[in-house]
Amino acid sequence: MRPDPSLADLPLRPELIGEEPYGAPQLAVDVQLNVNENPFAPSAEIAADMAATLTAAATAFNRYPDREAKRLRCALARYLGHGLDLDNVWAANGSNEVMTHILGAFAGPGRTLLAFTPTYSMYPEYARNTHTRYVTAPRHPDFTLDADLVLAAIAEHDADVVIITTPNNPTGTPTPLSVTEAVLQGTDAIVVIDEAYQEFSKHPENTALTLLPSYGNLIVSRTMSKAFALAGGRVGYLAAAPAIVDACRIVRLPYHLSSQTQLVAEVALRHADHLLGQVDQLRRTRDEMLVRLPQLGVEVIDSDANFCLFGPFADRHDVWQRLLDRGVLVRETGPQGWLRVSVGTPDETEAFYAALAEVLKEVR
Amino acid sequence: MRPDPSLADLPLRPELIGEEPYGAPQLAVDVQLNVNENPFAPSAEIAADMAATLTAAATAFNRYPDREAKRLRCALARYLGHGLDLDNVWAANGSNEVMTHILGAFAGPGRTLLAFTPTYSMYPEYARNTHTRYVTAPRHPDFTLDADLVLAAIAEHDADVVIITTPNNPTGTPTPLSVTEAVLQGTDAIVVIDEAYQEFSKHPENTALTLLPSYGNLIVSRTMSKAFALAGGRVGYLAAAPAIVDACRIVRLPYHLSSQTQLVAEVALRHADHLLGQVDQLRRTRDEMLVRLPQLGVEVIDSDANFCLFGPFADRHDVWQRLLDRGVLVRETGPQGWLRVSVGTPDETEAFYAALAEVLKEVR
Repeated sequence: MRPDPSLADLPLRPELIGEEPYGAPQLAVDVQLNVNENPFAPSAEIAADMAATLTAAATAFNRYPDREAKRLRCALARYLGHGLDLDNVWAANGSNEVMTHILGAFAGPGRTLLAFTPTYSMYPEYARNTHTRYVTAPRHPDFTLDADLVLAAIAEHDADVVIITTPNNPTGTPTPLSVTEAVLQGTDAIVVIDEAYQEFSKHPENTALTLLPSYGNLIVSRTMSKAFALAGGRVGYLAAAPAIVDACRIVRLPYHLSSQTQLVAEVALRHADHLLGQVDQLRRTRDEMLVRLPQLGVEVIDSDANFCLFGPFADRHDVWQRLLDRGVLVRETGPQGWLRVSVGTPDETEAFYAALAEVLKEVR
Repeated sequence: MRPDPSLADLPLRPELIGEEPYGAPQLAVDVQLNVNENPFAPSAEIAADMAATLTAAATAFNRYPDREAKRLRCALARYLGHGLDLDNVWAANGSNEVMTHILGAFAGPGRTLLAFTPTYSMYPEYARNTHTRYVTAPRHPDFTLDADLVLAAIAEHDADVVIITTPNNPTGTPTPLSVTEAVLQGTDAIVVIDEAYQEFSKHPENTALTLLPSYGNLIVSRTMSKAFALAGGRVGYLAAAPAIVDACRIVRLPYHLSSQTQLVAEVALRHADHLLGQVDQLRRTRDEMLVRLPQLGVEVIDSDANFCLFGPFADRHDVWQRLLDRGVLVRETGPQGWLRVSVGTPDETEAFYAALAEVLKEVR
């Protein structure tokens, strides 16, 4: 083949032609409220603990890591509680990879993943990468779900894997445990409850983890990116029956979690109390946002996560751009006309309110 | 579904039924010569550099990493030389993930991956995970390849992606550049030259990197696990035309390389001179091994890598077990009757010779 081909010269898979790499703009602005990161940086104490742990471990980095990541998975199980242990927990490089393992084991060609829109924009990417058919059913107009809606969609689409996101992204809407349990009573499909933002909810104790002893087809997905302020660390995990963890172990490629990733996550877990204290602060700021945004004259969807969907705007891109011009980056995602803003530090959130107030004067 | 299901109760994909998680035994023995790790641990100076870099970076770990890993890819391009830059280099969590990206873009359902046996035992796993048909053609009896053999196999199997491993694992056999170039002149299939062990070869300058300016369908795959003594760090990479890198960017899930992985790899690259000095030592030990093993009364395949295939044994598992009983772990892989041993430190390698001499007295 000739040198320096274009993508069109290469035998790219047909379904990828014209696709772009996924991701929100990574822009250097003062107030970054676009990807639901935790705004509180790891403390100097945590950074020092990570460095000391790395110093001790790095002289063995010539050796492959523990392929089973046992110490990390035990620490995650201890954090989750609910009687879980190593055999119930699987971890990977972000929820991205956890979901890829789930779909690699239980979905793939000829099988179907079902999600409820509007929802997280990565799900179709997971399906595409695993050659899984991706179907959606719309949530109720207020973005809630009930078991009838979910079970009817499972039946209609003959879904193999169903994903319920609670609190939902980008709406922040929780799904009550009673709905999840009714769904589990009605299906043998694999049911993934994506609790990426569960720690931010008003009642984090109302978690699908409590249903694990009763339902073998239940997977609860979590991440260290949000509550643990470790988006850079890229550690996602799940809790489920041991046989589901075994299925993930079959499809994972060996040594998927590097030594440094295992140890960085273990250090963060040792500081869980401190980090979850910051979650309390973020929850308060979120609750305040649910009051402040209407005072500024915009609607906001009731949120149980560390972000809020606000609008509607006749031209949301224009509002997004005007906020960016003022150094505040939010996200264009979700239903037409709405924008999503992450909960920042008190200062960042005030800067967002001030910028939004100015923008609203201009556009209305 | 009932609680605590067995794997048979779950809707596992049919082709995974009965599969086991892949991987060599991870056993705690004194002399580990089974997975071709670099036996020289990162120095205290490198560990300290990693820790200092982590301390500076960890207070931003609440933010997602650079999705493009630009600084790391630039450093890898500088290391490779040959006029390569950022746009020519892609990196991921080990060659495992690099190959998954390549197959995700250019293989997958309805497409075929071709490799030449005996070869690396992970290739069929990559194919399985990407739903790619995996076919093999046997190497010549001396484990070499020529262009006629390769091109005939490509034509016979209508291969979409072809992988040539040089030096080959587990035989250590290099494939001359002239063969690679003749193959590239004869096919528009994607040709992956897996140079995981290239730094250990007698002529590392005879790399397929020199062919990149001429052939748009060429991918050169490398890893930091071996020469850079960073198996724990899990960083693989490739060099290719920018359009091939763009194809990988489309199929990668966002933020696939964590902040800590990017920085650990960057630190190792800053110490390339020191680490490559240790490669010289390993090359000398390997050359010595090619002399010493025949002196002990076993055959050894001429190797250009940091391991040797030795044998044949009527019962290789028995020899493997007897070596393990003496605290020396080698690998049961490759052609029936042969074993693979990694090149260790001088002390480790001497311990292997001593153990093997005892075992040979027992079994012969």
